[in-house]
Amino acid sequence: MSNTEKGILYLIPSLLGDSVIERSIPAFNKEIIQSLEEFIVEDLRSARRFLIKMGSKPIDSLTFHLLNEHTTHGNISPYIDGLLKGKNVGLLSDAGCPGIADPGADVVRLAHKHGIKVVPLVGPSSILLALISSGLNGQGFSFHGYLPKKQPERGAKIKQLESIAYRDNQTQIFIETPYRNDALLQDLLSACRPDTLLCVASDITLSTEYIRTATVKEWRAEKRSFNDHPAVFLIGK
Amino acid sequence: MSNTEKGILYLIPSLLGDSVIERSIPAFNKEIIQSLEEFIVEDLRSARRFLIKMGSKPIDSLTFHLLNEHTTHGNISPYIDGLLKGKNVGLLSDAGCPGIADPGADVVRLAHKHGIKVVPLVGPSSILLALISSGLNGQGFSFHGYLPKKQPERGAKIKQLESIAYRDNQTQIFIETPYRNDALLQDLLSACRPDTLLCVASDITLSTEYIRTATVKEWRAEKRSFNDHPAVFLIGK
Repeated sequence: MSNTEKGILYLIPSLLGDSVIERSIPAFNKEIIQSLEEFIVEDLRSARRFLIKMGSKPIDSLTFHLLNEHTTHGNISPYIDGLLKGKNVGLLSDAGCPGIADPGADVVRLAHKHGIKVVPLVGPSSILLALISSGLNGQGFSFHGYLPKKQPERGAKIKQLESIAYRDNQTQIFIETPYRNDALLQDLLSACRPDTLLCVASDITLSTEYIRTATVKEWRAEKRSFNDHPAVFLIGK
Repeated sequence: MSNTEKGILYLIPSLLGDSVIERSIPAFNKEIIQSLEEFIVEDLRSARRFLIKMGSKPIDSLTFHLLNEHTTHGNISPYIDGLLKGKNVGLLSDAGCPGIADPGADVVRLAHKHGIKVVPLVGPSSILLALISSGLNGQGFSFHGYLPKKQPERGAKIKQLESIAYRDNQTQIFIETPYRNDALLQDLLSACRPDTLLCVASDITLSTEYIRTATVKEWRAEKRSFNDHPAVFLIGK
């Protein structure tokens, strides 16, 4: 079976929270979404809400496959059956770009293994938008997902990342569950050197967006809370 | 002077090559561009061409500041004079997102230092789009810019990045000057283990887009040339 007879796997970014479509999504994505009947999604409720906003075919006529941290890797091979039969399929994350800080990469890898064409659509990524807005080095950077939850592992990890930031001039990027943001901020302010640059980028693309880069010393004098606001944290020299 | 009296620094992604606006740029970006009279740009010619496409004010009425690898850091402080006086300013890269793999970060950092609000607009980033399309780990990744040009440093660097990819399950991302893509591909195929996964993502968002992830062993049997096509290279386990 040649490549052209198979379907295309579209990687479809969704909104970051309750932001405006025109702020974040190119018009082309709407066209693609409106042409699709099958989706692999991280969260069913948020996917349906997003697809309705984007003017998809009637929700009840669509086929959904669930791909999240509870999906076991062995169970995803039926998800590409439609693609192998020539149907185009959309991959949707809970928020932002699929395949980054979510389990979406597994299905993309499977697609490549079967010679299925993968087409990424443009859209918001909180990690990328945080990086470019931070003013920290964008010519060398590293994303680590979540840091260890407990001390002393967490403090040690922060100090290790800070050393790499200085040694390699490489921006270090990580995230936290939103209700723990302030705890992470305090741990960063305790562990890092006063001159280290810290960026907190929260509510990106929302009307409440707040992005600030300052030294750890300057942050120590701040009283701002980031709890319950999705945020990306970055440190650099 | 309070923050609200200063202008906003908009980070404005541009097209990756000669791609279609609606494929890559949200409608909101057009509104912002049409409202601006001052830009900090990496390359004057490509910036003008892009701004005209986006329906900017007449090009001759706009103020441009040049920020590229020849700009010395000390010379950029006048670039934020307009912002300090309350004017909104746009920062534009040669292609894709400003502040990533270009010198744009310097002016963003300066803006933060002066309490100027920084607002990132959504748009295409070849590095991010390559990452999500690769199927390689998107929960841990690292971008290194360009690898050393000469051997044996280059081979040693590739082997070092491959070790990190295995040890930390961290995707390693790098780029090359397009006319040297095939040479880099050959060096990767010589230095890496047969089972290592390699993704080459080229001409992203263009009609000639080609993205493939396969093992090094599989790539060795390929004869495809990527020279003169902008490409991102990724390795993972």
